[in-house]
Formats: sequence, C-alpha cells, structure tokens
Amino acid sequence: MKIIVDGFGGDNAPGEILLGCAQARKELGVEILLTGDRARLEAAARELGIEQDLAGMEILPCGDVLTMEDEATSVIREKSDSSMAVGLRALAEGRGDAFASAGNSGALVVGATAIVKRIRGVKRVSFAPVLPTSTGFVMLNDAGANVDCRPEMLLQFGLLGAEYMKRVMGVQDPRVGLLNVGTESHKGDDLRREAYGLLSACEDVHFVGNIEARDIPTGGCDVAVADGFTGNVALKLFEGVSLTLLGMVKDVFKKNLKTKLGAALVLKEMQEMKKRVDYNEYGGAPIMGASKPIYKIHGNAKAVTVKNALRLTKSYVESGFQERVVQLVRGTDRA
Amino acid sequence: MKIIVDGFGGDNAPGEILLGCAQARKELGVEILLTGDRARLEAAARELGIEQDLAGMEILPCGDVLTMEDEATSVIREKSDSSMAVGLRALAEGRGDAFASAGNSGALVVGATAIVKRIRGVKRVSFAPVLPTSTGFVMLNDAGANVDCRPEMLLQFGLLGAEYMKRVMGVQDPRVGLLNVGTESHKGDDLRREAYGLLSACEDVHFVGNIEARDIPTGGCDVAVADGFTGNVALKLFEGVSLTLLGMVKDVFKKNLKTKLGAALVLKEMQEMKKRVDYNEYGGAPIMGASKPIYKIHGNAKAVTVKNALRLTKSYVESGFQERVVQLVRGTDRA
Repeated sequence: MKIIVDGFGGDNAPGEILLGCAQARKELGVEILLTGDRARLEAAARELGIEQDLAGMEILPCGDVLTMEDEATSVIREKSDSSMAVGLRALAEGRGDAFASAGNSGALVVGATAIVKRIRGVKRVSFAPVLPTSTGFVMLNDAGANVDCRPEMLLQFGLLGAEYMKRVMGVQDPRVGLLNVGTESHKGDDLRREAYGLLSACEDVHFVGNIEARDIPTGGCDVAVADGFTGNVALKLFEGVSLTLLGMVKDVFKKNLKTKLGAALVLKEMQEMKKRVDYNEYGGAPIMGASKPIYKIHGNAKAVTVKNALRLTKSYVESGFQERVVQLVRGTDRA
Repeated sequence: MKIIVDGFGGDNAPGEILLGCAQARKELGVEILLTGDRARLEAAARELGIEQDLAGMEILPCGDVLTMEDEATSVIREKSDSSMAVGLRALAEGRGDAFASAGNSGALVVGATAIVKRIRGVKRVSFAPVLPTSTGFVMLNDAGANVDCRPEMLLQFGLLGAEYMKRVMGVQDPRVGLLNVGTESHKGDDLRREAYGLLSACEDVHFVGNIEARDIPTGGCDVAVADGFTGNVALKLFEGVSLTLLGMVKDVFKKNLKTKLGAALVLKEMQEMKKRVDYNEYGGAPIMGASKPIYKIHGNAKAVTVKNALRLTKSYVESGFQERVVQLVRGTDRA
C-alpha cells in the first residue's frame, strides 16, 4: 500500500511529518509518496539525521505550500502547485491508495470534491473528526465542511459515519445520534425534523434519535450527526473547554509547594488521563465521501500523531469502506 | 422591591427554593411573593424549621406544577394554573418587580412572550446564560429560545446582551462576538454574513467580529451572539465537557492511596477552581426582551444558588436595563 503524504501541511512540517512517515514505514509497512520541495525535504531529513529513511520514500516534487491563511478554494486556483494540490491530483491519478495531510482542512475538503471527486450518489464530502469521550470515541459528522445542509445530507453523514466507525474504529453496531436541542422527535428546526424522519426510516443505520450536546462527551452515541456549522462550533468548543479546564487544573497544581507535592503524587495518572482525552493523540479526521480515502492529520501533530494518523489511513484503505459506501448511498439520493 | 418566585420550579423545589428565598429576604432586603400550593409550601417550611421565614413572605396560591417534561406551550394552555404561569401573570399585572423560576426554560420563554409580552421593538425574547471562563464570564445569547433566527434578531441579541453585561454584571464596554466557524467577515452562512454587517454598522455595540467556539472558554468576548440552535448546543456541550473532565480528574484522584494523598494536598485549591467554573454557582440566566425582568434559576439550584440568582434578579430590576432597551432597539426593527 502506498500513502501519499503532504510534506508541507500543518504547523510542524516538514520535520515532524518526515519523522512520522519514517516511523510509519517501519512499523506499518506502508510505502510513502511525499509531496513538496525536494531540497527542503532533504535538508530537513539531514537535520533530523533520517536521510536514509527519506531515501526509502518517493518524492513528488512541487514548489508551493498552501497555508492555514489561504482560502480553501486556492487549492484549485493559485495554489494548484502546492504540496496539497499535487498530492490530491496524484491520488486522483491512482499514484497512491490514500492521501493524508495536516494542512488546511477547508482546502482539503474543496480539493477532495473538485480534484478527487465524490463517490457517485454521495451529496457532500464531509469532515468527520473522531473525538475522545469518557467511555471511548465519538465521531462528529459533519464538523465544518458544509455550513448549509439539506436533510438527505445529514442522513448520509449518519450512514457514512457509522460505516467508518464500524470498519475503521472497530465499533460494533455504531449508534447514530442527531445532534439537537432536545431528545423528543419534534425538537429543533425543519432541517432536524426532516433528518430525523430520514434517519428513522433508514434500515442501514442504528439510529438512537436526537442527542443533546451534553451527552456527547460521555459517549451517548458513536456518531453525532450535525450540519457543518453546528458541528464546527461543537468541535472547537470541545477542544476549547478541554484545553481551558486542563490548563486550570495545571494552574492549581503549580500554586504552591503543597500543591506541587500533590501534583507529583498524581502525575502519572494525570498524564494517562490527559493522553486519553487529547484530541491530538488520535491524529485527526477522515474526509469522507470522496472517491478515494483522504485523511486530515491534526494541524499540531508531532511525529507520533502523524504515525497514528497514517495507521488509521491504512485501516481506512483496507476497510472496504469506499466500496460499501457505493452500495449504501443508493436510494438515499432522493433530491 | 418585590420578587415573584416560582415555588415549584426546578429539581429541588420547594425546599431549596424556600431556603434560598429566606436567605435572600435577610441578606438582600427583598420582599418575596411565592407561587404554589400553600399547604405544601407550609409543610416544607415546617420540615426545614423555617416557618417564621415563610410567614414573612406572601403566597400566591395555585394548584398545579409545570414540569420539565411538559411542553413549553403548556404554560399558556393546560398548565395555566401552574406556579410558573401564575407567577408570570402576577408579574404582568404588576404584583411584583420581577419573576424568577428554576422551572422549564422553554415554558418560561413562551410565558415571557405570551403573558408578560415583549418590549416594543424587540423581535424575540431570548435565553441568555452567563457562563464562567478562565478569565471571567461570557454570556451566550441566544442559547435555546429561538432555533430559527433572522439577522436582525442576532443584532438585538448582541445589543441586549451587552447592555445586560454592562449594567448587571459590571463589565465595562462589553465585547460582542458573533459565534462563527472562522474569524474572517465572509465566514459562515447567509445568516452570519448578514448579522456581521448589521453588528458592524451598529454604533451601540462594541463588535469584535466573528469568534470561534474555542475562544469562548478563554474569554475571547463578553457576549457570544448565536442563533438559539447553535447556542443551545454550545451551552450543553460547555456543561457536558466540563462535567466529564472534572469527573475524570476526580477518578484520577481516587485511583489509589498515593493519588488520594495527592488529592488531599490540592483539595482546597481544586475546590476553589471547581467553584469558579461551576455554572450552578452563578445561578442561571436572564430571560431578555420581555417587558419586565424574568430570571431563570438553574434547574439543579440549591439554596445558595437560588439566593445568588435572586441577587442577580434584584440587580436586573435596579439596573435600568428595561428602560434602556426601549431606546436601544429603535432603528434595529428593520424587518
């Protein structure tokens, strides 16, 4: 299997990307096709002392980098020679089995749609991060790719999300919930009420009804279905509240000698817990609905997170997800 | 000043409500008009040993209770003899200066609109909880009263929210942010883009532009403007993530003898921190836009939280908020 990797996506590129790819090659047995400026990649590898690792990877050279500040649409316009755009074209041309990038998510979604193209019958490509809960994981689908949605899109987010959680994350019979302002079926706006009807009627989804946001962190469902506006707010609030609270706990520990001693006694267990809730640990989010697997690595990812993301990307390819989605979406394409 | 209090709203009524009212009478010097079944109120007071306190309060007797399971609209229909409905009518009739209830928020909003009526020019009554951040407080307006919004409603949520934060919470020059999926002015859907234009053009608002959800818990703005759907999801996720994480920290502390010792050393500081982030401590949320002050006490409120809520209700009455809003909304009523 060959994974195409954006050599210049994310905050820590290319160094941590290279290190993560080197680890992935050894541990996962995947081939890597890196996109980006060859001289800069080689210089980074030299600095890190991993020239030999880089020598075992293919490079697809290109001159430009698409940044977080660039417009999403630049991937098909002024940044069409960027490491992201070149990687997406390589995927579309069959030069690899999947594409992974820690770069601009909006651009990745636009590129997935415009360059790699959607699976026939899929309404929209979506951005679907898998977040830690107190009991496991939850996928938020969509979390930002589509701010305006129709009911049948939400149905598909549920269908594809459940399939991913089952095949890639190993969740048996994933429970799909519709993120809403109350649990009763009539709650919310027209979009939610219509989506509720479609999800209830769909035999391929284990729909558990509406779910309130407070039940997401405790694992009230395995896939939370949302329009991209609500999902994006939820994703960022999830991250923001977690980071802020953990920061406040840290401040408590640093307050005085006594609390520092207390901190030392719980250090190991606290680190384990923080690791468990660290969004960064899990590496990122699948982009779903495109004709080939695309994976968004977390923008802050360090080497180990890049490697974890590539492990998930590998599972994504091997899972048979793409083939199954072709069947699943038949009949959901009502509009 | 006389505050009308729903004697049977919330999870801990009537006991904690009575205790909170008794404390408020003594500490805040307010008169209390309690709604609810006289015999049950008297029995509760006897049980708590506060018959004398109850004797100092007026009772407006009524037979029914509106529960969390009741439809919001029941406040003007089958539950029109409930302690909430009777309290709202008493407020409309001028038998008190404000109404406070720990009951069903949806019903409170419906009753505020249908019984107490909106301030002339105000488009919608809104539910606006004030939440703790790492640096202070943030109001979320609207957080659930209006799932479908037009841009001019969002403008008013910003205007009224800022006025409340200034006059009642003592925030100088409150910064109003529009909750959105990115900070640039073109981000989000049509609703957000139009609201951005209205908020930018309004001289009475210190608009700081779009705010992403991750910047809310760190105090990126003082009033976060949202449609009621997004705001409700944000409110419940805020609560859910906080509770879940604090629960996980607690589990760490209880893990073994060593961690228990560590916990003992940080106990005081942790409790202070938890108190600071406890939504329940602050007592609740103003209902804004009705012709008289209405305050939603947190549903789980114990006596001290009820008292804190009544202190805020008192400030709400004294703040001149209602009179100022009449002037502020002139000219925002474009649709």
